[in-house]
Amino acid sequence: MDIITLPLSSKVKIVVIGLGYVGLPLAMAFAKKFRALGYDISSQRVDDLKQGIDATNEFSASELKLSDIEFSSNSKEISNADFYIISVPTPVDKDLEPDMSMLISASELVGQNLREGNFVIYESTVYPGATEEVCLPVLEKYSGLKLNEDFFLGYSPERINPSDKLHQLDSIIKVVSGSNEYASKIVDALYSSIISAGTHLVNSIRVAEAAKVIENTQRDLNIALINEFAQIFSKLDLDTEDVLKAAETKWNFLSFRPGLVGGHCIGVDPYYLTYKSQQVGHNPQVILSGREINDGMVGFISDTFLSKLKKISSPLNQAKVLILGYSFKENCNDIRNTKVHNLALDLKKKVKEVAVYDPVIDELEASRVNDIDFISSPEHSYYDGIILAVAHNHFKELGVDRIRSFCKEGGIIYDLKYLLPADKVDLRL
Amino acid sequence: MDIITLPLSSKVKIVVIGLGYVGLPLAMAFAKKFRALGYDISSQRVDDLKQGIDATNEFSASELKLSDIEFSSNSKEISNADFYIISVPTPVDKDLEPDMSMLISASELVGQNLREGNFVIYESTVYPGATEEVCLPVLEKYSGLKLNEDFFLGYSPERINPSDKLHQLDSIIKVVSGSNEYASKIVDALYSSIISAGTHLVNSIRVAEAAKVIENTQRDLNIALINEFAQIFSKLDLDTEDVLKAAETKWNFLSFRPGLVGGHCIGVDPYYLTYKSQQVGHNPQVILSGREINDGMVGFISDTFLSKLKKISSPLNQAKVLILGYSFKENCNDIRNTKVHNLALDLKKKVKEVAVYDPVIDELEASRVNDIDFISSPEHSYYDGIILAVAHNHFKELGVDRIRSFCKEGGIIYDLKYLLPADKVDLRL
Repeated sequence: MDIITLPLSSKVKIVVIGLGYVGLPLAMAFAKKFRALGYDISSQRVDDLKQGIDATNEFSASELKLSDIEFSSNSKEISNADFYIISVPTPVDKDLEPDMSMLISASELVGQNLREGNFVIYESTVYPGATEEVCLPVLEKYSGLKLNEDFFLGYSPERINPSDKLHQLDSIIKVVSGSNEYASKIVDALYSSIISAGTHLVNSIRVAEAAKVIENTQRDLNIALINEFAQIFSKLDLDTEDVLKAAETKWNFLSFRPGLVGGHCIGVDPYYLTYKSQQVGHNPQVILSGREINDGMVGFISDTFLSKLKKISSPLNQAKVLILGYSFKENCNDIRNTKVHNLALDLKKKVKEVAVYDPVIDELEASRVNDIDFISSPEHSYYDGIILAVAHNHFKELGVDRIRSFCKEGGIIYDLKYLLPADKVDLRL
Repeated sequence: MDIITLPLSSKVKIVVIGLGYVGLPLAMAFAKKFRALGYDISSQRVDDLKQGIDATNEFSASELKLSDIEFSSNSKEISNADFYIISVPTPVDKDLEPDMSMLISASELVGQNLREGNFVIYESTVYPGATEEVCLPVLEKYSGLKLNEDFFLGYSPERINPSDKLHQLDSIIKVVSGSNEYASKIVDALYSSIISAGTHLVNSIRVAEAAKVIENTQRDLNIALINEFAQIFSKLDLDTEDVLKAAETKWNFLSFRPGLVGGHCIGVDPYYLTYKSQQVGHNPQVILSGREINDGMVGFISDTFLSKLKKISSPLNQAKVLILGYSFKENCNDIRNTKVHNLALDLKKKVKEVAVYDPVIDELEASRVNDIDFISSPEHSYYDGIILAVAHNHFKELGVDRIRSFCKEGGIIYDLKYLLPADKVDLRL
């Protein structure tokens, strides 16, 4: 068989499966050093990228056009690679359990194309053990090949932070691991060639999987604690931001803000660790209590808002509400798993009209969302209440006077993001 | 009445009530600028200090002797002050509810001595509202004076980190607050005169109280999460330290280690916030889940150790165990609320002998502890198992070979603190 040796030749061929926030930057980086093909199941995504359009806004048209990368949505074109890197979504299902169907499909596809000497490296977030327990059997079954005899495995968790221009792929230390000593060396060398920040090689795939899943779990829980503080302080009539600013003057206080936790990582990854934990008989009470409070923030925000709104607009079922911002994160057009959706639906049951204004998200994407009334510009002197839900720069630039002008006389503004001056809004989280 | 004016005169007299980790450094700092008297209810503590002995090890004999500070345990000597600063312990009772008896006693004492124009400033950790709801009525009752007419209140939470030589009183920004605008200015000026790092003035006493109580609550919960990870990883046969080291290579992963949470702050303060939160109808599930897992670590560590010990030493009830370290924190002689105590008691029920060796703690203090067999030096080739419970430098210097020499052939070492090389111990947390 063809053994990959060090130093890696520039003729090495890398196929990246899944061209989202994770796969595209990875494939683009590898294309600078090796032969790289980016594969995605969505022909729309691939056609866009071929035309220089990146819907995730991470690359400009010229960056895409200047790259030697190839794109394909034709599964026949992924053969004859040396490395397969799988970066497909790993969401949860409606029972909040891991949905690894995309990971398994991708593994089947790679398994069908696997040749002796190949490497398969996973980047998708999973629980410790998933690569070897779930993906490996699929690869072996579809290829007829044996791990560490015929082919090799690697796991290198993605650390992409969507719309963060400071922390980009090559400036973030990358954790790498391999299925044996040889595989570890090769995987380490492969990533070292594109990550200027360097790699951190761990001694097993499971350690690498575990390291990734605890990162977002920690973030989720820290936001949950601040959300719990916000709920307590709301009852005590204390301004949460005042308290946090004071606490932050201590050298080791950790700066987090309350809010809705959406997206496809922070609110999702803890369920992967939970799943595995429960499988081995440990119910992770700390992790789950955090998830519960974060998921309960929609109800808390809705209740807080409506109880204030009731005082100025009676009856509630005649009230008109404007929500500013819809995406799961500021200045990011990604609307997957945004909790603003749930907030809007909750409010819709109780008031007459809920309009959502978000100039950052993609109109086409928005048009596929049911039940939400997106507007292209807010009415003037029209709404009884406004919720500022996402801290887009656009809203900051709009300013509080302009935002207030959307309200009727005496209407209320609920600032969830501390974006507006405290004394100019009626409620803050 | 005598109105205190700015700039503060060096003739101002400050009485600090309670000379523990918090009160002593404070009184010592004020003594450099003003007339300062340190009062403690313990005549032993006061006699020691007068002789240049600081049992908390924060000040040397020469520092104490060179200071202009006065010490007293005679309550008659605290009259005629301008400022009373109360820094007494605020523990929890056996039901884990706030025990403010010392705070109330101190307030009674100050109330009896209060004169017009005086300031009373609290430094003890409490829940938001406690100063005005609990302490103020006591002051008014015992003095017959009215707040903001006859006397003034302040709250400035302590941020002392015992045995931390880097973060000392004057280098930590201090949150300050006062009962009205005038009081805020004076309290701010008072602390500004001794804190070179500066002050952070907040707009109410309740904000200052809240800021303090969330600091340790956040720390407690972050340790709890890592403890939960350690419990999960133990079942998955993953080394927690390996996983944490990998996760820490991400720029925003927060570095905490698993372990016992003892002492008089981190494990206690969350119950103060819990108490107030429950009073207003919110059960803080995130905070309490953290407390539960941290308190459960004694059982987890004991079980993990014994199930390994059982394999090498049968029957268990004949096993001899050595615990290295007893204080609640490394290189600190404070044994209040140390969870090593609970661990030793738990083990004592199941094995023949549990010896505790801690060269850092005070022999006299140790002699007052019941049920624990302190030893002045470990036996050689004697113990079936050793638990390294506190990361004193002394144990690091001792080294793993010396520590192993205390064990019988085949005995086990359980390193709770990652102090020894991973491959030289039998168990790590």
